[in-house]
Amino acid sequence: MSDVLRVTYLITCREGEDPEDKARGIALEQSAELPSRCIPEHVYDQVVPRIVTLEPISAGRYQLVLDFPEAITGYEPTQLINNLFGNISLKSGIRLHDVEWTPKLLSALGGPRFGTSGVRRLLGADNRPLTSTALKPLGLDTKTLAGYCTDFAHGGIDLIKDDHGLCNQATSPYLERLQACQDAVNEANAATGGNSLYLPNVTAPRGQLEQRLEAAQQAGCKAVLICPFITGLDALIWARDNYDLALMAHPAFAGAVAGAEHGIDPALQLGEITRLFGADMVVYTNAEGRFPTYDQELCDRINDRLWRPLGDIRPALPTPGGGVDAARAPYWVERYGPDVVLLIGGSLYAQGDLRAAARRLQDVVEGR
Amino acid sequence: MSDVLRVTYLITCREGEDPEDKARGIALEQSAELPSRCIPEHVYDQVVPRIVTLEPISAGRYQLVLDFPEAITGYEPTQLINNLFGNISLKSGIRLHDVEWTPKLLSALGGPRFGTSGVRRLLGADNRPLTSTALKPLGLDTKTLAGYCTDFAHGGIDLIKDDHGLCNQATSPYLERLQACQDAVNEANAATGGNSLYLPNVTAPRGQLEQRLEAAQQAGCKAVLICPFITGLDALIWARDNYDLALMAHPAFAGAVAGAEHGIDPALQLGEITRLFGADMVVYTNAEGRFPTYDQELCDRINDRLWRPLGDIRPALPTPGGGVDAARAPYWVERYGPDVVLLIGGSLYAQGDLRAAARRLQDVVEGR
Repeated sequence: MSDVLRVTYLITCREGEDPEDKARGIALEQSAELPSRCIPEHVYDQVVPRIVTLEPISAGRYQLVLDFPEAITGYEPTQLINNLFGNISLKSGIRLHDVEWTPKLLSALGGPRFGTSGVRRLLGADNRPLTSTALKPLGLDTKTLAGYCTDFAHGGIDLIKDDHGLCNQATSPYLERLQACQDAVNEANAATGGNSLYLPNVTAPRGQLEQRLEAAQQAGCKAVLICPFITGLDALIWARDNYDLALMAHPAFAGAVAGAEHGIDPALQLGEITRLFGADMVVYTNAEGRFPTYDQELCDRINDRLWRPLGDIRPALPTPGGGVDAARAPYWVERYGPDVVLLIGGSLYAQGDLRAAARRLQDVVEGR
Repeated sequence: MSDVLRVTYLITCREGEDPEDKARGIALEQSAELPSRCIPEHVYDQVVPRIVTLEPISAGRYQLVLDFPEAITGYEPTQLINNLFGNISLKSGIRLHDVEWTPKLLSALGGPRFGTSGVRRLLGADNRPLTSTALKPLGLDTKTLAGYCTDFAHGGIDLIKDDHGLCNQATSPYLERLQACQDAVNEANAATGGNSLYLPNVTAPRGQLEQRLEAAQQAGCKAVLICPFITGLDALIWARDNYDLALMAHPAFAGAVAGAEHGIDPALQLGEITRLFGADMVVYTNAEGRFPTYDQELCDRINDRLWRPLGDIRPALPTPGGGVDAARAPYWVERYGPDVVLLIGGSLYAQGDLRAAARRLQDVVEGR
């Protein structure tokens, strides 16, 4: 049935908690939100998800598959999140594990505007891993940050992004930084013949977000950084639909919703929901870095979800970061293949000479 | 020091994890996001939070107090969330426990536009508990929902809100429902001399949210329902600043971030952050209802945070719901006192005659 959204939860029952009761409770809570007896009969079948299977997977844990009538989402991304994990977020032992999307929802969400091939076109970089780095730390003045842009762009880094903690602080106001960094990258590109891009961080309160996107486009940026778990996920859709800018999604705050027994599977959250909502590049915290929660198996699952065929939705670029060591770049290039953005910050700074450090990294991804 | 944001985390260390390393890691991750040696000296003191105390509280658990230089927030609500629980959300065993706000941040955030007394003015209801109910379930047509409005308003319910799952589904499109329900409540008020309010659910994707708020104001609504954990929290601030509408915040998706060892303390999240961001009424899932995660102690802490003096920030109204039984209304009136909105849905519907059920509830809160 193509009008049915199939959703899988892993549920954990406490002592004495009945899995079938819990399953029925989830179905009602995420739709009618009323006891069965209070739901008019003609409405029940149209709105309440059907329990497809409920199977034990280990002591006290079960896999629950529900079929949601897709129409209850109103085909709106906000209500979709509400249906998938709204009120039941306030219960315990419920983990949103997987979703089989319907054609109509895939079409309503839409996915990346650029996708992997679109980002490659912007950079003029075929069939090789891409590189990214971050301007940091916050607290530096604009001139210093723009100077880093010059160095990184001369070193050939593809995507030079604001650190996600840079916003509109007095030490480097957004508009001032936007112009200075974009100018610096433009000048370096003119000198080297390269195509480096500067990505300002547009994460901001509603209203200001729009102004920052507008300003980024006016300044000639081709891509931006955004933290959709802070702005609200549908900011991605909105930015995709209203601006000609590739979107790099940063995972700040995403981990708040990814408990082992409760929350959302990070592979679904980062690898698929962000992609469907319009991210062209998705930053996650790579294995071996400073975020041990993200092990290799999880990172591989995120990659797979960003790459895999999914209706007409374009693939997006995994962007592993969070402590990726520049010295390990050859390993990651080998492991992840060409369709990846290696995000390397601290270990470039640690080398002192940014331009030389960037060049060394670029040589790895360019196969020199 | 008034320019320092004091933040308390409860941290849980795994076997072999050193609490001091973990504490220093949190301070760096939430600010400079670089190893200490890579941070220019003149910047370090301006941006990296200072560890005030780190004290054991039980086996493997510690209380960590950090002083954040408030300027790194740029005084923006999005960056504030980022500073408090951005990247560290992607680690484990870190729970945001408390925040001592600075005067400048309190002023930047602003709190409720109406607050408790403002909502009372809208309703003409002094010094008694207020009542609220929900139009539900989704899947019903507009005429039936508007009929419920008529019944509830004749019964005297103060705040008649859309169920948070009602958005713009084909069964009852938003604009059609808005007008029909508002008309129904207006007509009932004219007949009874009452002041019931209809609160449409404006939760929607960016762009549509604005349209729905605008339409609600045009239709003569005085208050709306919104799910800020889905739209992005700053939607509250934006709605407060741009519309003359009281805001009832619904907790859908909020529970995703409230793990016992990791996430955000629900009392801080619902009782204080929502209030500071502009909610006049805050729905939470009451003790004794169908959400056992929220016990009485937690509900009391949420209430306390919504009521307590906090600079110039207006108090907001706790709105306990999620399975509050109408038969227990006298108990809750006694327990919570007058500054509360009792949100009762299912157990009114279960009584069959909505008008009579509403009147019985109203008699309790009006002390009849």
